[in-house]
Amino acid sequence: MALIVQKYGGTSVGNPERIKNVAARVTKYRQQGDQVVVVVSAMSGVTDNLIKLAKAIMPLPSEREMDMLLATGEQTTIALTAMALHALDIDAVSLTGAQAGIVTDGVHTKAKIQNITPKQVHALLDSGKVVIVAGFQGQTAEGQITTLGRGGSDLTAIALAAALKADLCQIYTDVDGVYTADPRIVPGARKLNEISYDEMLELASLGAKVMQSRSVEFAKKFGVVFEVRSSLNDNPGTIVKEETESMEDVVIRGVSLDKNQAKVTIVGVPDKPGVAARIFKGLADAAINVDMIVQNVSRNTESPSTDLSFTVDKPDLAKAGKVIETLKAEIAFREANTDENIAKLSIVGVGMRSHSGVAAKVFETLAAESVNIEMISTSEIKISVIIALAKGEQAMKAVHQVFIG
Amino acid sequence: MALIVQKYGGTSVGNPERIKNVAARVTKYRQQGDQVVVVVSAMSGVTDNLIKLAKAIMPLPSEREMDMLLATGEQTTIALTAMALHALDIDAVSLTGAQAGIVTDGVHTKAKIQNITPKQVHALLDSGKVVIVAGFQGQTAEGQITTLGRGGSDLTAIALAAALKADLCQIYTDVDGVYTADPRIVPGARKLNEISYDEMLELASLGAKVMQSRSVEFAKKFGVVFEVRSSLNDNPGTIVKEETESMEDVVIRGVSLDKNQAKVTIVGVPDKPGVAARIFKGLADAAINVDMIVQNVSRNTESPSTDLSFTVDKPDLAKAGKVIETLKAEIAFREANTDENIAKLSIVGVGMRSHSGVAAKVFETLAAESVNIEMISTSEIKISVIIALAKGEQAMKAVHQVFIG
Repeated sequence: MALIVQKYGGTSVGNPERIKNVAARVTKYRQQGDQVVVVVSAMSGVTDNLIKLAKAIMPLPSEREMDMLLATGEQTTIALTAMALHALDIDAVSLTGAQAGIVTDGVHTKAKIQNITPKQVHALLDSGKVVIVAGFQGQTAEGQITTLGRGGSDLTAIALAAALKADLCQIYTDVDGVYTADPRIVPGARKLNEISYDEMLELASLGAKVMQSRSVEFAKKFGVVFEVRSSLNDNPGTIVKEETESMEDVVIRGVSLDKNQAKVTIVGVPDKPGVAARIFKGLADAAINVDMIVQNVSRNTESPSTDLSFTVDKPDLAKAGKVIETLKAEIAFREANTDENIAKLSIVGVGMRSHSGVAAKVFETLAAESVNIEMISTSEIKISVIIALAKGEQAMKAVHQVFIG
Repeated sequence: MALIVQKYGGTSVGNPERIKNVAARVTKYRQQGDQVVVVVSAMSGVTDNLIKLAKAIMPLPSEREMDMLLATGEQTTIALTAMALHALDIDAVSLTGAQAGIVTDGVHTKAKIQNITPKQVHALLDSGKVVIVAGFQGQTAEGQITTLGRGGSDLTAIALAAALKADLCQIYTDVDGVYTADPRIVPGARKLNEISYDEMLELASLGAKVMQSRSVEFAKKFGVVFEVRSSLNDNPGTIVKEETESMEDVVIRGVSLDKNQAKVTIVGVPDKPGVAARIFKGLADAAINVDMIVQNVSRNTESPSTDLSFTVDKPDLAKAGKVIETLKAEIAFREANTDENIAKLSIVGVGMRSHSGVAAKVFETLAAESVNIEMISTSEIKISVIIALAKGEQAMKAVHQVFIG
């Protein structure tokens, strides 16, 4: 008898038929004698409709009230899922995030889980019930309803698995697992049987964008082994876990392409302390997420100046450009350029650490394809390059071919 | 500065435009310096849609899970209403039933309010906020979400008004108030300026069926004066309150016609103790609501037997007939007849007590219209007669004409 936490996303519970399918799958595990906790998202489309309603009332609704509103989406799903299990004669009970003991901080719309008191869930499991928990939501110590932001339901599942010391945590989605590359772009892409937390983090934007990095970080921190698998079939998925030695036998775990980035280059930035801090503080204050940052050494020792490039999400590019313009007087750089026709190609694998020459082979491969590299950034287990958007898929296929096949 | 509780039903908050209208009305009171608590129902149609979703999953969903599901309807409205007030620069905050301190028993889908701890609501009001409370819902002492059943939002408003010692409780609806008769049937029907709790209770089915009797009973028990008024205009409504002496000057407060009743007559019932108890226990066990019961004296002293008639809601008639048939062997009555072509005409007024001859005048009026009376039942302030359905409206108009004009 195992204690299993299963998480089903919005598509998997998108209508009554699909909710019944979820119930059938849960029933299979339950009838094997397993204890099952089911975490569900809002039915697909429901959250968007609620947001549309709110926007019809005011353009920028209060975040506290958005949480009050959006929390109804998951609450609807848990009740329907419990009913679907009852229809199969399985004893089941639904709990809101608050009822499940999920306590968060008070940062509405992107609250962080502070702790989970799983007493109630344990008691219900021990009484033979399947426990259905609303994903994406919690409550502050003062009883305010909060939501966890993007990827919140995954986080609920992983945090519950940690708090309950579950034997297994299954993240059900509409893909079979984590792939070496997006199979829609790279026909030779393969499903991975296992992947380390760090690789999964680096590949967060890989393929079908299966998971937000915060859930993976949480899992890594608390050592929660989880499986990403499909709710449409019974194929085994991809196990995400701490790195093992054998994992290093594989040089490259996967290749990802992010087309949602844009590049800002600031030319002729005075090379003195505090300048970079000023720039990135300005961007942070405007709530702009910066991904890659590249700065090279000064080229002129008399009037030392440098060029600074960084990438942001494409929708933030205009805002980022404006922030930089407002800093021109203060920082006295020469000029700033933006480019949204770029893509970020990343090659990830813990094996990279013990296999030399990976970077060289990547650059070689790109050169053979006549792909110009605009920026390079590396970590211990990742190489990312910024290249022209138009060459993105071609470059991805070539690198996948060379390293994975 | 007054403390006002306002309740808006599903039609009044049926879409974003209407929610904005509600916010505008609340703002008017707030800007006069009043403290306002707003109780809202689910947007019209929302509850029905949720029920449809549940039925698509199983025909008879668990009542606990129905409460979990339906509570989302009001939760959606409170968030949207708070946003609409924010859009008008009014400080406002939404609370679920649980957050507002509404504690109920554990009878899911028709829970009773056990107590209200209004500390949180008072604190928020004192900090200058409009407080929006989800109607129709509460929470048990153990933290289970419950709903209050039909008319639950009215009950929330009246119970909150009692707990908060509010100066005013306004029930907003889509009619101008309580009428002397349904204006769609009786063109001369007038809106009442005031009415006693008891009259309101007797007239519960009058006109537009403005309120469930349980809310009126609660108001009477706790002495909550409330006003039924329209959310579509600024006309004063009808004040519902304890009877005053001047109310007795008016003989008849109103006339109502209930076309939703059906009649069962059991002929030749042995006149011995326990028989009536057996019959009505059988009906109660089948969850059939009985309204009027009429039994006359035995007509035969040698083999004493009597005829027993009662009325039930029309949709329950077939079920009631079956229950009676199953009792035939046990009770040995001669035969049972059912009739759904009847209507109940009721004449209500506290003045009836001090004005003699009201019943005689009612019967005279009906005789002049050639309306045959099938059953009669009276209380201190009400006369009800069962007549043929086809004569119902004609009889109602005639009685209204004679007593009210």
